[in-house]
Amino acid sequence: MIIELIVIPIGKGVSLSEYVADVMKVIEASGLPYETHSMGTNIECGWEDITPLVKRCHDALKAKGVERISTTVRISERTDKPYTMSGKMESLSEKLKGDE
Amino acid sequence: MIIELIVIPIGKGVSLSEYVADVMKVIEASGLPYETHSMGTNIECGWEDITPLVKRCHDALKAKGVERISTTVRISERTDKPYTMSGKMESLSEKLKGDE
Amino acid sequence: MIIELIVIPIGKGVSLSEYVADVMKVIEASGLPYETHSMGTNIECGWEDITPLVKRCHDALKAKGVERISTTVRISERTDKPYTMSGKMESLSEKLKGDE
Amino acid sequence: MIIELIVIPIGKGVSLSEYVADVMKVIEASGLPYETHSMGTNIECGWEDITPLVKRCHDALKAKGVERISTTVRISERTDKPYTMSGKMESLSEKLKGDE
Repeated sequence: MIIELIVIPIGKGVSLSEYVADVMKVIEASGLPYETHSMGTNIECGWEDITPLVKRCHDALKAKGVERISTTVRISERTDKPYTMSGKMESLSEKLKGDE
Repeated sequence: MIIELIVIPIGKGVSLSEYVADVMKVIEASGLPYETHSMGTNIECGWEDITPLVKRCHDALKAKGVERISTTVRISERTDKPYTMSGKMESLSEKLKGDE
Repeated sequence: MIIELIVIPIGKGVSLSEYVADVMKVIEASGLPYETHSMGTNIECGWEDITPLVKRCHDALKAKGVERISTTVRISERTDKPYTMSGKMESLSEKLKGDE
Repeated sequence: MIIELIVIPIGKGVSLSEYVADVMKVIEASGLPYETHSMGTNIECGWEDITPLVKRCHDALKAKGVERISTTVRISERTDKPYTMSGKMESLSEKLKGDE
């Protein structure tokens, strides 16, 4: 299972990088494989990881006084074959090469 | 906490209403307050509800042979005051009336 | 085509209903069919409507001093049959009745 | 302005990499700066780019017989300072270093 996690603190000013750094530390501490990009973070995880991870992100922000948080979790599950972030990128890369 | 849940079965044809009905039955069986609209379902719930609910939706679809599912969970948490679906709609309605 | 529009002003405090009301006025003024729910607004529209609508929403918020906006547009297009918000809800309703 | 674009063809089987490759070719042909990750593509663009780009992605899939498409466009606009994908990652990186 691969998820994309986007956590947006609302009402704490326009600059969010301090809060995104807090979220990143929570994700790093989870030990789960992840890739950060400019619009969110993709994480390989199991069902049991999702809520604890998101809740820890919210807790970290609330500990800094954030009172409203808008989070998006996109969950992509596939049961017909092994499913990893690197596997997806390789499949795409092969398709793009095959078309050249 | 209010979540919006969107569950999309991939690879099982263009008509999804059968699968959306399965998801609706899972949500109804949860006993949680919800409102369904044409692009998803909004649900009032706690942290402990999220993963079991989403996993039951996926399980229901996988039991029907769905092998790939794309789900979006938008989580809106607010700690400064009670936060309900009806409360949000009332606040908006008051603001709109106040501007007339 | 049906879109779901979610517009979140960032950095202007925790209470957003004033800004949501501004967005609602822009949507109302567009004359497009819409339904508002507690997590966003669904709109029936064409390709040519999307960017002008979203840009007018951003402009309304920027006119009030909002300097950062996070917007999500979910676009659902289907070409095999007429596709409306009410049609989707009717299909779902029939499926749920048929299963009773 | 930075957008994240996620285009999901529905009803054409479980393997989507062929269709994702089509979407990537449309994005590449646009000439806009982008970064692809395992859950979508982030693009630096202006208001005028959004609808044509998304429509061309849908057209490419429809030309292959795709009859239903679920697309998400997350639009992030910020007016208080220059706003780029690399600038966001640098701000985050500095915050993470500063905390060590």
